[in-house]
Amino acid sequence: LIGVAAAYGVALEVSRSAGALDQACRVLRNARPTAANLAWAIEQVRTAVLSAPDGVQAKAALEEAARIHAAEEHASAAMAEHGMAELAECRRALTHCNTGALAAPGRGTALAVIAALAERGPLERVLVCETRPLLQGARLTTYELARLGIDHELIVDGAAAGLIALGEVDAVIVGCDRVAANGDVANKVGTYALALAAGAAKIPFVVVGPTSSIDPRCERGDQIEIEERSGDEVRRAATAELATAATPCRNPAFDVTPAGLVTALVTERGVARPVNGETVGALLSG
Amino acid sequence: LIGVAAAYGVALEVSRSAGALDQACRVLRNARPTAANLAWAIEQVRTAVLSAPDGVQAKAALEEAARIHAAEEHASAAMAEHGMAELAECRRALTHCNTGALAAPGRGTALAVIAALAERGPLERVLVCETRPLLQGARLTTYELARLGIDHELIVDGAAAGLIALGEVDAVIVGCDRVAANGDVANKVGTYALALAAGAAKIPFVVVGPTSSIDPRCERGDQIEIEERSGDEVRRAATAELATAATPCRNPAFDVTPAGLVTALVTERGVARPVNGETVGALLSG
Repeated sequence: LIGVAAAYGVALEVSRSAGALDQACRVLRNARPTAANLAWAIEQVRTAVLSAPDGVQAKAALEEAARIHAAEEHASAAMAEHGMAELAECRRALTHCNTGALAAPGRGTALAVIAALAERGPLERVLVCETRPLLQGARLTTYELARLGIDHELIVDGAAAGLIALGEVDAVIVGCDRVAANGDVANKVGTYALALAAGAAKIPFVVVGPTSSIDPRCERGDQIEIEERSGDEVRRAATAELATAATPCRNPAFDVTPAGLVTALVTERGVARPVNGETVGALLSG
Repeated sequence: LIGVAAAYGVALEVSRSAGALDQACRVLRNARPTAANLAWAIEQVRTAVLSAPDGVQAKAALEEAARIHAAEEHASAAMAEHGMAELAECRRALTHCNTGALAAPGRGTALAVIAALAERGPLERVLVCETRPLLQGARLTTYELARLGIDHELIVDGAAAGLIALGEVDAVIVGCDRVAANGDVANKVGTYALALAAGAAKIPFVVVGPTSSIDPRCERGDQIEIEERSGDEVRRAATAELATAATPCRNPAFDVTPAGLVTALVTERGVARPVNGETVGALLSG
């Protein structure tokens, strides 16, 4: 949704003034540096505008944004199908952050797979990490699962690894903000520990995202810029003070999971498994 | 402190009525099943009372509680020395939950080691996991570190593994609620993921606790009873609602870290390294 919203945002600015293109692209691109498909969608609209004759630039921008929107909705449905095939045995899933209709076009990414598995597969229950500091799991994913009628339990992020070790989870299914060319995955902070726990328990750790999240110019995960956000998010939860205002905080918004810990990367074009430079490159060129 | 407080609690009840012994021991023992030294301290006082002649039972109970208190304060100082020797190179530590003077006699367990390393060793900075759901790291450990004048930063629990992977931590230092005979460690929920991250980054994962936390009757970690607490703790942080009252929750209060992931177990009697049934047994018999 971040890419679709930015695409419409560029189109809106261009409809006001064709000269606003560069500034609109720059402002929107800098809003979240970690997200690959933000920059990707903006570039698509920018190219469409620059290729359009004078006078129809605003129309070209809006058409391109609508095209991206429709394509991403279609991608969500395709990811759900590929993910279902990949996770045909999954009765008990664990997920992190929000990857549903509130975060991505259509029914989302990882949550689209979970919804399909619940409707047409063996899925019985989802453990939802609350996802501190902003609590997207607690506030958004539990809301979406409740509306979908899927059994779920909310846990604190620290509880995930222990429950995985106890055998209570068949697969970890998460989204991604950016995937490097070698398959390293940047996603909401806390994801990497889930990958370690899944690896130790020998259960699948499956990443779901559109190919627009793959950044072929980024070779490895350590080249992905991690957004550092305000420490106030750590100090507070919703309105409650969790520590004193003087408490020094760190607040990285994402972490990087090495490709070797990712069982499969599910995209709208198909699945990379194992996940490495070759299989990820095949997704992009295929 | 849980054991010392329970020892004084039994002594208080026995001073009211010698016949209250059994019920006091039962009620206090059940208050936190995961903590080994709770049951241990209660048993010490119970034995002292049962061995005392009629009429001096209350005095014997109080003396035994005071003896336990003094011995545990001495143990804290001894753990600090052993831990300092073990972590002589540690400039940047990461810790979880609260293990200082607010949690354990003297200066605590892991935090006693951290304080000694800051005063007389190379320690420059401590990353503190907030430790959801009850936020002992955010509310207690940051308070203790600020009073001790030790530089620290508070992080959400999910951020720890990523920062460890980035090379920002030299050692993970935590306490323990119960250690099985084979060295498996039950500690505050979230600890196990820290051990996985430390193992992946090849940095020490050091557990600090008194030998009274070692339970020789418990062979392995999977035999340790994990307290499951109210889901309301997950739904809320301090006073803020984090999810709706209808959101189903799981809330295990502890998890188990396999002995193989523990670099060293620091006790008041010395250090077990590697941590296994043999080295842990040697601590108990030594």
